[in-house]
Amino acid sequence: MQSTNDLDAIFKPKSIAVIGASPTAGKLGYDVTYNLIHAGFTGPIYPVNPKADQILGLPTYKQISDISPAPDLAVIIIPSKAVPGTIEQCGLAGVKAAVVITGGFAEAGEDGARLQEELANAARRNGVRVIGPNCQGVNNPHHNLCASWPLLTMKGGMAFISQSGTVGAALMDWASEEHLGVSVFVSLGNRADVDEADCIQYFNRDPHTKVIALYIEGVKRPVDFQKALASATKPVIILKSGRTARGRVAAESHTKSLAGVDAVYDAIFKKYRVHRADTIEELYDFAKVLANISKPPGKRLLNITSSGGSAILAIDQAEKLGFESPPPSAILKKRLRAILPAHCSVDNPIDLTGDVIGDPTLYAKVIDAARADYDTMVIIFGDPIPGASTMVTPGASELVIFLGGADVERKERPLMHERGIPVFPTPERGLKALYQFFRFDSRPSPPSSPHVSTSGLQLLPAGIA
Amino acid sequence: MQSTNDLDAIFKPKSIAVIGASPTAGKLGYDVTYNLIHAGFTGPIYPVNPKADQILGLPTYKQISDISPAPDLAVIIIPSKAVPGTIEQCGLAGVKAAVVITGGFAEAGEDGARLQEELANAARRNGVRVIGPNCQGVNNPHHNLCASWPLLTMKGGMAFISQSGTVGAALMDWASEEHLGVSVFVSLGNRADVDEADCIQYFNRDPHTKVIALYIEGVKRPVDFQKALASATKPVIILKSGRTARGRVAAESHTKSLAGVDAVYDAIFKKYRVHRADTIEELYDFAKVLANISKPPGKRLLNITSSGGSAILAIDQAEKLGFESPPPSAILKKRLRAILPAHCSVDNPIDLTGDVIGDPTLYAKVIDAARADYDTMVIIFGDPIPGASTMVTPGASELVIFLGGADVERKERPLMHERGIPVFPTPERGLKALYQFFRFDSRPSPPSSPHVSTSGLQLLPAGIA
Repeated sequence: MQSTNDLDAIFKPKSIAVIGASPTAGKLGYDVTYNLIHAGFTGPIYPVNPKADQILGLPTYKQISDISPAPDLAVIIIPSKAVPGTIEQCGLAGVKAAVVITGGFAEAGEDGARLQEELANAARRNGVRVIGPNCQGVNNPHHNLCASWPLLTMKGGMAFISQSGTVGAALMDWASEEHLGVSVFVSLGNRADVDEADCIQYFNRDPHTKVIALYIEGVKRPVDFQKALASATKPVIILKSGRTARGRVAAESHTKSLAGVDAVYDAIFKKYRVHRADTIEELYDFAKVLANISKPPGKRLLNITSSGGSAILAIDQAEKLGFESPPPSAILKKRLRAILPAHCSVDNPIDLTGDVIGDPTLYAKVIDAARADYDTMVIIFGDPIPGASTMVTPGASELVIFLGGADVERKERPLMHERGIPVFPTPERGLKALYQFFRFDSRPSPPSSPHVSTSGLQLLPAGIA
Repeated sequence: MQSTNDLDAIFKPKSIAVIGASPTAGKLGYDVTYNLIHAGFTGPIYPVNPKADQILGLPTYKQISDISPAPDLAVIIIPSKAVPGTIEQCGLAGVKAAVVITGGFAEAGEDGARLQEELANAARRNGVRVIGPNCQGVNNPHHNLCASWPLLTMKGGMAFISQSGTVGAALMDWASEEHLGVSVFVSLGNRADVDEADCIQYFNRDPHTKVIALYIEGVKRPVDFQKALASATKPVIILKSGRTARGRVAAESHTKSLAGVDAVYDAIFKKYRVHRADTIEELYDFAKVLANISKPPGKRLLNITSSGGSAILAIDQAEKLGFESPPPSAILKKRLRAILPAHCSVDNPIDLTGDVIGDPTLYAKVIDAARADYDTMVIIFGDPIPGASTMVTPGASELVIFLGGADVERKERPLMHERGIPVFPTPERGLKALYQFFRFDSRPSPPSSPHVSTSGLQLLPAGIA
């Protein structure tokens, strides 16, 4: 496996060239330059365009070799045929890495596949690390680097790495709409060089990343992929498509990678304690909870709600997943009775009823009184409760659900996310996410060293390697 | 079972009194009066308040008996102790029905339970049909009737009937945010009189209702409930909580109805072909598809996408559910090749790639060319595609998925919903919803008459009846 230290030039470059920068709004070469500038990148940005004098206020360069000293990273948005030669020029000029957004390679037939091979060879010969081609770029908000679109700058702990630009974009859009930050977004595209194994390794060491969430259709280097999983100390969540016979055909046609037999992936994921997601929403929800709260010490829940119905759904889901929702102790009940109005039911759930809209501090009071007695507070806001966001505490063992709050919910949810408190739209989704902390509890321990046993490798059919 | 014809006074009243109407903005008695007026109710609205001269421009009445002729419906928002007497007065005055929003009845301890008994007796003695108490009212957009909150007026085919005000409100909020109309929202509350069996019967006959979606915690009259299910000709979807041991305790404490053993419910739901939902989102998604598209003639899908990744996830989900995604015939492939740019893959999925942003009409062209060859087009917009909403046709066999489109998605989705085309946020949710049309295909036929066999009744434990 190549060293991943050199991936700093991709994810934390000191200077960037945009080869194919455009002065025309609406063109990708314009949008990416715009996003690089407006994400607040602190180093120099060099637009490369032989025909324009300046782009978005920056002086342009005719070719990459005109820039001195050479930038760390080149973002490439030019016609596909010119890409291999440009990679060569980048290498000769001293550019360390490239993000190739241009499509028209392996995904576009045999000619494209040949072109991609040329690109990969040029990169290898010249020591240029490459993301893409045919990708949606890279966004690292902690480095003020948005070599991608849309322009998102919210910092967080979730690393989203996706073979599909669109699936990744959907995750980024959800995060952006909810005001939930990410540590990075990487669109892998055709993976002529950098792949999922590199990214797992790299972001496992990245101080801002708390969880690594991937969408993949197939694995490029099965051995290194398993090594990366074996050495990962952070939670890894994977949505792997191409699980069914027809899905596999579609996956292999899409990214020209072998999708493999699903049972093999399943065995590998189990072995390395990968949180396998079954849907895009699970990938997102699991990342949300694992990046933003700590593992609770146990599975005893106290449900605190304004909505009786939602709490019953929460308890049903919790029970199915092996959580417990025991009633409060006699002492706690007495303490809660002293705090709460008579119409509130003091059991599990504690039902504050819709009247809590008039006094949301009841939530905070109950949480304070009961915190020592339970492992996690399941806090359900089931009404338009203004100020809900100030009732909960970042880093505490709290699972927050907000539903049925309409405009108030849409205002309070982002406020919680800005404070690092994840909020789930339904009890079912919240608890399924919380369960991820306990998903592997009953399983035997994984191998203690990153050594991968032969039996592990044999899980992969010969064709995939 | 009582006749449900008299429920017209609740769901389609000609005139309405608001007992407890308030001149003070922010009070429920104000909000409900405001919503009744602004939903465009065409008959007279009579605020009843002994202390105010006019409310929201309407002259007030000191008591219900002052209004002549008596209104069909009274919406009641006064302290709980006064409710039974008020129901009596309503009956004496000739009011046919009441929606009691006030809480503090069976959900609030023994005194409340006694008060509810008084309320029920007063209603029975005086022939007044009652929704509630302790509920969030009734909204029938097709009748311009919003005796509830929030104020929603979009007309559609989904009837949402909920024992929990909040769970119902969440469904209404989702529908409102997406610009997807409903045929009715009924918050059943404590069900002193009208219950889920009445509502299934009534809305099965309602011309605007295409699907009946219920959230319930327990059934009030098991025999009539089964009769209602047996005679229902429209799809019925039920989310039943209290499925686990602890959830059941919580449910029985919440609405004071016996939640029953889940296996019994499951058997009944299977027998009567109820679409059982496992989550709030499923309840919503299933209603969305069953109300807005027709059953496809078969299970052959053509996936048309701008996002390769999303299409693979769609195919995986489809395969798991027994759908087929066969490749296009040689003739169709030739036809499509003539329509599409060379870089588009012509298989199943048909991958138009992100370039379709520049020419969304490719979607419509492919749909037109392929319609005769497949049962359902699975149309995936996986990018910000302006004009997406004009590429699809209401009433056609099309399943629309839109994800990763950010602001464009948030603009196009409501436009489709206003045209009666349901849009799903992920391939997985869309296909699970579409599957509802085929859910019972391999099961034996239900009894052809509404007669309920004894064995069916015996499914319910004695305690529940």
